[in-house]
Amino acid sequence: MAKKSVYFFGGGKGDGNATMKNLLGGKGANLADMAKIGVPVPAGFTVTTEVCTEYYENKGRIPKRVTEEYLKALKKVEKVMGKKYGDKKNPLLLSVRSGARMSMPGMMDTVLNIGLSSKTLPGLIEASGDERFAYDAYRRLITMYADVVMEKASGLEPADGESIRHKLEHVFDSLKEERGVTEDTDLTTEDLKGLCTEFKKIVKATLGKPFPDDAMKQLEGGIKAVFQSWNGKRAIAYRQIEGIPHEWGTAVNVQAMVFGNMGDESATGVAFTRNPANGEDMFYGEWLINAQGEDVVAGIRTPLPLNKKSKTPDQKAVKSLEELWPKTYKQLFAIRNKLEKHYTDMQDIEFTIENKELWMLQTRTGKRTGPAAIRMAVEMADKKLINKETALMRVDPEQINELLHPMVDPKAEKKATLLAKGLPAGPGGGVGQVVFTSEAAEEWAAKGKKVILVRNETSPEDVHGMHAADGILTAKGGMTSHAALVARGWGKCCIVGCGSLQIDAKGKKVTIGKKVLKEGDWVSMNGSTGDLYEGALDVLPAQPDKNKWYSKLMGWADATRQINVRTNCESPADAAQAIAFGAEGIGLARTEHMFFEPERIIHMREMILADSDEDRRAAVMKLLPFQKKDFLGIFKAMAGKPVTVRLLDPPLHEFVTLNDEQVHELAKHMNLQPHDITTRIAQLHELNPMLGHRGCRLGIAYPEITEMQATAILSAAAELTKKKVKVFPEIMIPLVGHQNEFINQAKLVRAVAEDVMKKYKLKKLDYMVGTMIEIPRACLVADKIAEHAEFFSFGTNDLTQMGFGFSRDDIGGFLPSYLKDEILPVDPFQVLDQEGIGQLVEMGVERGRTSNKDLKVGICGEHGGEPKSVKFCHRTGLNYVSCSPFRVPIARLAAAQAALETPRKAAKPAKKKAAKKKAASRKK
Amino acid sequence: MAKKSVYFFGGGKGDGNATMKNLLGGKGANLADMAKIGVPVPAGFTVTTEVCTEYYENKGRIPKRVTEEYLKALKKVEKVMGKKYGDKKNPLLLSVRSGARMSMPGMMDTVLNIGLSSKTLPGLIEASGDERFAYDAYRRLITMYADVVMEKASGLEPADGESIRHKLEHVFDSLKEERGVTEDTDLTTEDLKGLCTEFKKIVKATLGKPFPDDAMKQLEGGIKAVFQSWNGKRAIAYRQIEGIPHEWGTAVNVQAMVFGNMGDESATGVAFTRNPANGEDMFYGEWLINAQGEDVVAGIRTPLPLNKKSKTPDQKAVKSLEELWPKTYKQLFAIRNKLEKHYTDMQDIEFTIENKELWMLQTRTGKRTGPAAIRMAVEMADKKLINKETALMRVDPEQINELLHPMVDPKAEKKATLLAKGLPAGPGGGVGQVVFTSEAAEEWAAKGKKVILVRNETSPEDVHGMHAADGILTAKGGMTSHAALVARGWGKCCIVGCGSLQIDAKGKKVTIGKKVLKEGDWVSMNGSTGDLYEGALDVLPAQPDKNKWYSKLMGWADATRQINVRTNCESPADAAQAIAFGAEGIGLARTEHMFFEPERIIHMREMILADSDEDRRAAVMKLLPFQKKDFLGIFKAMAGKPVTVRLLDPPLHEFVTLNDEQVHELAKHMNLQPHDITTRIAQLHELNPMLGHRGCRLGIAYPEITEMQATAILSAAAELTKKKVKVFPEIMIPLVGHQNEFINQAKLVRAVAEDVMKKYKLKKLDYMVGTMIEIPRACLVADKIAEHAEFFSFGTNDLTQMGFGFSRDDIGGFLPSYLKDEILPVDPFQVLDQEGIGQLVEMGVERGRTSNKDLKVGICGEHGGEPKSVKFCHRTGLNYVSCSPFRVPIARLAAAQAALETPRKAAKPAKKKAAKKKAASRKK
Repeated sequence: MAKKSVYFFGGGKGDGNATMKNLLGGKGANLADMAKIGVPVPAGFTVTTEVCTEYYENKGRIPKRVTEEYLKALKKVEKVMGKKYGDKKNPLLLSVRSGARMSMPGMMDTVLNIGLSSKTLPGLIEASGDERFAYDAYRRLITMYADVVMEKASGLEPADGESIRHKLEHVFDSLKEERGVTEDTDLTTEDLKGLCTEFKKIVKATLGKPFPDDAMKQLEGGIKAVFQSWNGKRAIAYRQIEGIPHEWGTAVNVQAMVFGNMGDESATGVAFTRNPANGEDMFYGEWLINAQGEDVVAGIRTPLPLNKKSKTPDQKAVKSLEELWPKTYKQLFAIRNKLEKHYTDMQDIEFTIENKELWMLQTRTGKRTGPAAIRMAVEMADKKLINKETALMRVDPEQINELLHPMVDPKAEKKATLLAKGLPAGPGGGVGQVVFTSEAAEEWAAKGKKVILVRNETSPEDVHGMHAADGILTAKGGMTSHAALVARGWGKCCIVGCGSLQIDAKGKKVTIGKKVLKEGDWVSMNGSTGDLYEGALDVLPAQPDKNKWYSKLMGWADATRQINVRTNCESPADAAQAIAFGAEGIGLARTEHMFFEPERIIHMREMILADSDEDRRAAVMKLLPFQKKDFLGIFKAMAGKPVTVRLLDPPLHEFVTLNDEQVHELAKHMNLQPHDITTRIAQLHELNPMLGHRGCRLGIAYPEITEMQATAILSAAAELTKKKVKVFPEIMIPLVGHQNEFINQAKLVRAVAEDVMKKYKLKKLDYMVGTMIEIPRACLVADKIAEHAEFFSFGTNDLTQMGFGFSRDDIGGFLPSYLKDEILPVDPFQVLDQEGIGQLVEMGVERGRTSNKDLKVGICGEHGGEPKSVKFCHRTGLNYVSCSPFRVPIARLAAAQAALETPRKAAKPAKKKAAKKKAASRKK
Repeated sequence: MAKKSVYFFGGGKGDGNATMKNLLGGKGANLADMAKIGVPVPAGFTVTTEVCTEYYENKGRIPKRVTEEYLKALKKVEKVMGKKYGDKKNPLLLSVRSGARMSMPGMMDTVLNIGLSSKTLPGLIEASGDERFAYDAYRRLITMYADVVMEKASGLEPADGESIRHKLEHVFDSLKEERGVTEDTDLTTEDLKGLCTEFKKIVKATLGKPFPDDAMKQLEGGIKAVFQSWNGKRAIAYRQIEGIPHEWGTAVNVQAMVFGNMGDESATGVAFTRNPANGEDMFYGEWLINAQGEDVVAGIRTPLPLNKKSKTPDQKAVKSLEELWPKTYKQLFAIRNKLEKHYTDMQDIEFTIENKELWMLQTRTGKRTGPAAIRMAVEMADKKLINKETALMRVDPEQINELLHPMVDPKAEKKATLLAKGLPAGPGGGVGQVVFTSEAAEEWAAKGKKVILVRNETSPEDVHGMHAADGILTAKGGMTSHAALVARGWGKCCIVGCGSLQIDAKGKKVTIGKKVLKEGDWVSMNGSTGDLYEGALDVLPAQPDKNKWYSKLMGWADATRQINVRTNCESPADAAQAIAFGAEGIGLARTEHMFFEPERIIHMREMILADSDEDRRAAVMKLLPFQKKDFLGIFKAMAGKPVTVRLLDPPLHEFVTLNDEQVHELAKHMNLQPHDITTRIAQLHELNPMLGHRGCRLGIAYPEITEMQATAILSAAAELTKKKVKVFPEIMIPLVGHQNEFINQAKLVRAVAEDVMKKYKLKKLDYMVGTMIEIPRACLVADKIAEHAEFFSFGTNDLTQMGFGFSRDDIGGFLPSYLKDEILPVDPFQVLDQEGIGQLVEMGVERGRTSNKDLKVGICGEHGGEPKSVKFCHRTGLNYVSCSPFRVPIARLAAAQAALETPRKAAKPAKKKAAKKKAASRKK
């Protein structure tokens, strides 16, 4: 038997269920599910995602088998809805919508009112008793169909650059102007009739084909168009940003139309079962009377609140659904409770009221801000709706970012000039210069400027500009508008529906009351309140610790995770910040950053350009007091916690990029000729510095550098140890590829340690010597290296560079085409390539532990704060991950999720005592 | 019981035997062995190499246990030799010599006549009946001991820069001058007595310590000095060149002295059981009457021939040992036969005749030239002395190099001015400019000049200069002199004992008869005849195929080896040369070299700087006819053999290194402003081009390049196929790290193939698409790549670069210190790093074959012609190695040796039919 390709739902029944998201898409699976649990759903059917794949393999044809199946399903729909598709008297109309595994709001195409033709129009007029409504539906169908099916899906480029949709809308707007009206509803039936005739003419003239007057042709065209829109430019761009695989495909949901625009007893709405912005347990939604669903999402009319509780101060005068139609609201509220209990998560629902009859069009897990995700998860767990483990899994670790976002300083806000107030659609503070187009946003951002993108409303075409902006501000639309949905998905600051803005995009200015802002003027946004201020206000760092739900969740995470989380930083201030974020030590303190201060760089340069070993040693030793001071500061800030210090790593020529003046100065200082300086610098030039004389290769050629650094680190440790401060330095030799490199450098360090202990009269000094594993060869011979090393820290940035043969600095030349052509799914410098580079890490860990079972293993590349990579590190048995301070909480949660997904046999994070013991036992 | 550290030999007995070379060194093991088989050997004992290691671990002390052991052995020596060490009346004198596992001629120190003191001197005078001899021996001891033990071994640097040896020799020479004599032997007993007294004074004054007058102290000092000399600068340098591990250590051989300089019935000599220069089965040696062994090797006096047969035309007047002392010669000849039969290999022996009594001082496997090694191996196998397998193992594959060396054109020789004639010590032709010091040789060679190093004699201090020179020419010394030994070891052209040369090194000139050559003048050498010519003569390529022993041996090798040998080349001429050397196909034809001709580079640059896809395609397609012509030539030359063609690999900016003039020209040609050209070139600049936009990354970004190249290759193949020429192109995608890269490019190539077949109306076209495995990640995911690829070729150069993180262009910055500090045993770009990079190769092969059992696997990095690496490739199961044409025979022999060392289960080299079958089956 052939596989089932079409799934019916409706009338209390459904072929599918909520577990079948991969096959039916999120929307289709939930429609079937809702039908089954007795929620009123217009009947329909879902064509599976597998058919989408077949469609593409089949060069854009729908298999005959599938057509036969959906015609059968259509019969069932007709039966349940009591109407007939293509029927003269009582015609059934259909909607055709996309539905992928993961929601891609607004990214794919939809066609409504399918089935309207010269044959069925009279029937609709009769059945609805409203000729104007019927022609309006017809006008909408022609517009959508011409746009989506006839133009976009067939890949036609508008000959004159203007899309058919714009052409038709232009005719529509011209008519309104002619009639002197502003609202669509002010046009008469005759107006609409005339428009339909004219539209059909324009379609034929522009696209060379007539609008199909056959219901079955319309249906097939609609289904194909949805499949086709999966590979539209916007959809592809969105998937790249969101990391959705291109091979998933979309399902198609064909469903009986119900009309929220069938007059004043009809309405349409969108709601969240809880507040998606802050997570509060409150039914929250928006609706519009006499409107189709798209009208709410498109943000063209500002919708009404759903209930009294969710009204903003501005909305006191408007009536909510609760007040206007209390019975329907009650029914809706009951469904809200049913759905949240059924799905045990916050739902994003769409409903339509057709002549007072309530229909549910969609339910799906609702997108939410980071703070909302955390609050909902914790509150649901507290109320036993879900357990703690589920709560931990509910929050995307990246969402924590939003809590960590800076806020506009409330004190500054009090004194600032409030320009306007809108809806708080995306959290945190946004400060930047005003721009009016997505292109400008991208351009300015590329130059390093902070911009606020100001638009009447946003559309999927704007996603790139929105991504580039620091904040998004719209004049129209609600909390469920495109701008709001997208911004929340990214955790970006956003204010929508800020009605007092009069935007003149062409003139590059916006008028707010009497105030006029031009492109480039500064504004500040509080995305958590919806307040817009003039000028650039001060910004406060994030204070996640003041959020009780966050603290609770992170507590659960820490109790759950099995690996430690450290931070990469090299200043006492950053160390303090990282500790506040929960860092349990430093996994990477880069020492080279410490040499760039003017009073130091001169000695560094002297050292680099020294002619003899003696001169080099003399210059290096001048750096010793500075280095020691650095480490005293860091060790104190990290008292009681381990600190991994990496010895000098970059090629020396990085320190001697000098202009003429600097050359002369240095020559004078070193008592040399400028020519000597430039000659020596030229000698340092390398063709491929990434693979050149750097890392431990420096310490081997110039042992005095290693000696000075080890002395600074260990003297600082000894001094603090004397003062009873607990210090655990871990000295890390960079860029080891051969065990002999490590042996050479470790010997030097251990000899320094002996000397320091003697000097400070210490019997014992806690320290370790280990290495950064960042050269592919090091992973292959990790067993040999681990015979001598006390710890490994994977430098996955360099490991990715060398393992892939990709220069991070030069990848811009080809990565865009690699992502575009789907040669790589993601940038491997952002997300660890588990398939390839991950193998090297696994090999390094496994082999290292073979010869040294106590080997401490961590990761300190940027991947250490990327959730997928953190989970990989957990599975691979690392002791810790280390990342930049702001990513520490993200790593903590990701580590907890990893522990829940794949429990390890190993015990909880290593205790300090165990680490000390190991250190002592390995020292020679 | 403690391990045995001292092994006695002598009087027909020996504690050790020939299998104990690792413990006793080559010399010690063979001394024991010779004693056992009844060869007359002065009694002695060997202190093991293990003691050397202990000595260094022990901070330069000899363990007490060892001292006790050697004193016991000394008693046995006294008993056998009938003398007593340190005895007043009949004193035993000893020699102390080094003896490592592998011979390191002249690299370590020796002390002779140990045991002579004020106490024993009278006894020696009485026993020898020759006071002059005794004082001469004493004078030699003081000189050697002061030099080796008191100065060098204690690490003293001469305060005034002049070594003690030079000081003493200066005094000695001054006395000769004073006395008006030129020969040492002309000094009287009284002269020598006086010298001994003065020497002792100078030693004490210079070194601050007296020459030890105690025999036991002398012995201990001698042993220590030998151990110490293992780590002398010269020894370390030699080991680095020869690849001898530093941890092996040396044994010390202490042996009763016998004297070749005890008057005119005494003599000393060195011989080879066969001719080491050409391999002829002829007893071949040199000897000196009334001389010590070092005199022959040092080349100070030109020695006499051993027998009539080996006399050169110049030597007709001099008497050979055979003629002078026939009885002794007969005894020696019998020993020669005995030793060759015993060791079944050519021996290098040292003997001393003391008052007509023959003593063998050493036997060891003799060094030989490449041609000699081949001839001996083949002749011994033909005579069943050894089997064919042993014969194959007898020749170091690198030695084949010598047969492949160019020769001076014999026709040119006939017309040339013969300047002088010397001994033919190293094979082949050498043409270069005369230099007189090793320093000059190194300097000139570093500038790319060809030099002939001209010296009176060479010493171990000269090895670096000798290495740099194209030929070595000495005025003194014989076939066993330092220069001859070293040059033969390297297969370098060398003429020694060219007595007509009067060298004025300070004045930088050499006088030959009336002719004066200054530094920089050109000379030509025939190292196989010993003829020296004026000027730079033409040089002929090597013709190994005219050597019947070589042909026979290579025939055995081909019948034995289990992997194919291909060549890396990209011109029909080179291809023909490679086929003559036995290449079975091309493993790497680089296409980028084909673009540098002026008529092509202009289109290449146009392509690179094109602004649009159309312009780029237009420019690329202009290159198509050129490329096709190239491939027609190569495929014809390689008819019937596979040819792997690599698509464009290097970063594009390599093609656009332009001067101002070229920029202007190109701008004119392309109708652009010069500024546009320079801007675009600047955009192409990369920080790490090795890891940048190159390899398949080019073909992915600019598919038209791949398309053009595939079209050129496959059209050429199709055209020849039509003409019944058998063509097997293998198209290689470079720098693949991810399977998707391969899939992308292979699809393009296979589509081109379809088009070409249609165009040429061919039903079938033999071709394969595969990839170069040169990115570490490719090895890790080789299974995924091999699902789509028909062959792999390991690019071990890049694999080493990325696996080690070493830029080949920049390694000069740190490799010297890496080799010096023994962090790496060898340059990993010369010899494949089996420990690390080798694992990647193994992984690539194994995983690749997991998903594609027919996968053809080869190597095309430079390692493909390095014998150790070839053996690794055999063991790893590769189908073929590929190397430069001149290394093909080396690889063939190495492959045969590998098959003997480690037989594989796999069958003989892949037959072409099988390859074709695979190709056909994989094509889509």
